[in-house]
Amino acid sequence: MSSLDPAIAARLKRNEAGLVPAVVQDATSRAVLMMGWMDDEALHRTLTTGRSTFWSRSREEYWVKGETSGHTQHVREVRLDCDGDTLLLVVDQVGAACHTGATTCFDEDRLA
Amino acid sequence: MSSLDPAIAARLKRNEAGLVPAVVQDATSRAVLMMGWMDDEALHRTLTTGRSTFWSRSREEYWVKGETSGHTQHVREVRLDCDGDTLLLVVDQVGAACHTGATTCFDEDRLA
Repeated sequence: MSSLDPAIAARLKRNEAGLVPAVVQDATSRAVLMMGWMDDEALHRTLTTGRSTFWSRSREEYWVKGETSGHTQHVREVRLDCDGDTLLLVVDQVGAACHTGATTCFDEDRLA
Repeated sequence: MSSLDPAIAARLKRNEAGLVPAVVQDATSRAVLMMGWMDDEALHRTLTTGRSTFWSRSREEYWVKGETSGHTQHVREVRLDCDGDTLLLVVDQVGAACHTGATTCFDEDRLA
């Protein structure tokens, strides 16, 4: 059970694994930094702590962005889309958003 | 079978349904407009036509954004993230991006 506000939980449309994708955008540069996945508890923690918190599908655990790297995301806004199945976080990013050291996770592989 | 370039197909990490989420960003305002889902063929069509093309999970068919509304997306850039499991499209959006008439799909429901 998550402590997520029931009024918010009722609006979320989760995938088969109970997760919602969360797009993260830099508040200043407006760059799209990364995408992560949240379950209700990760969203609850994000909303209450003001730090982006995701569910790691590979490690099967919660992770606070920047917990080990120091590259924290201070959350300014959290928005839910018209279908209730995608979140948008607008953040102040400390340091590089990508674990590779790149500014964003989309910097290095341009297909077109 | 899709006609997607095998060099690109080899880099994609798809979910259980063979899909990759595609975040769409406005090239001018830098707003995050929406998120859609693509399989290999939708990505192939997007890359070759320059119009955002998605796979509709509910209707189980391809859809070209703006095909009925006229609110087309002219694709300037397509990027793949560091994990190969998320796409970013940078587009010139004609009209409103959201089917509700809102500028973006994230305009109307702010959680924080």
